[in-house]
Amino acid sequence: MRPKIKVWIVFGGGAVKFGDGRAELLELIDRLGSLQRAVTQLGMSYRSAWGYLRELEGVAGFALLERHAGRGPEGGTRLTPRGREFLRRYRTFRRGLDEAVQRRFARTVGRA
Amino acid sequence: MRPKIKVWIVFGGGAVKFGDGRAELLELIDRLGSLQRAVTQLGMSYRSAWGYLRELEGVAGFALLERHAGRGPEGGTRLTPRGREFLRRYRTFRRGLDEAVQRRFARTVGRA
Repeated sequence: MRPKIKVWIVFGGGAVKFGDGRAELLELIDRLGSLQRAVTQLGMSYRSAWGYLRELEGVAGFALLERHAGRGPEGGTRLTPRGREFLRRYRTFRRGLDEAVQRRFARTVGRA
Repeated sequence: MRPKIKVWIVFGGGAVKFGDGRAELLELIDRLGSLQRAVTQLGMSYRSAWGYLRELEGVAGFALLERHAGRGPEGGTRLTPRGREFLRRYRTFRRGLDEAVQRRFARTVGRA
């Protein structure tokens, strides 16, 4: 018997959600420098990822991604400084949350 | 922007889940003294609720519900003492969890 949680950040009254899967998408786009390569690796549809990201930027009120010219390691689609900061804060929020829930569970439900 | 969580207790390697909806079902059965009346009120199917509860008792390893003879206020289907204790502990675990997540969110993501 163990607790399991799902966590999202909810924007705009619940219309747009951001969770672990989307955090992974942003991170992978930034690492690969390409939305196309990121969605291929994750087995997602380009069209739905693109639509989601536009929607997320709309409700967040700031750009998450930007295009850099050139084919070198700096070229391609990257996180904006603000997008990178948002992702970093999300990771800080998310990290340790499972452990906190496990500790709370052990204190309250335990082995029943 | 705000966090939202879903929480379950997972039994038997993830095959059986127990969360807020099921806690409400158990509580309502106990209050009404009847599985039939509880599922009707919740708009659930009797068959699936019955199947779920048998499955849950199987993985939990103890009876949650028991039948009491009589048509008085004590009669009908009620939580066993162990079932009541489990539900009480689940409520203690669950209570305050949302607030803890909100506090963590405010400390980490804030208004980004």
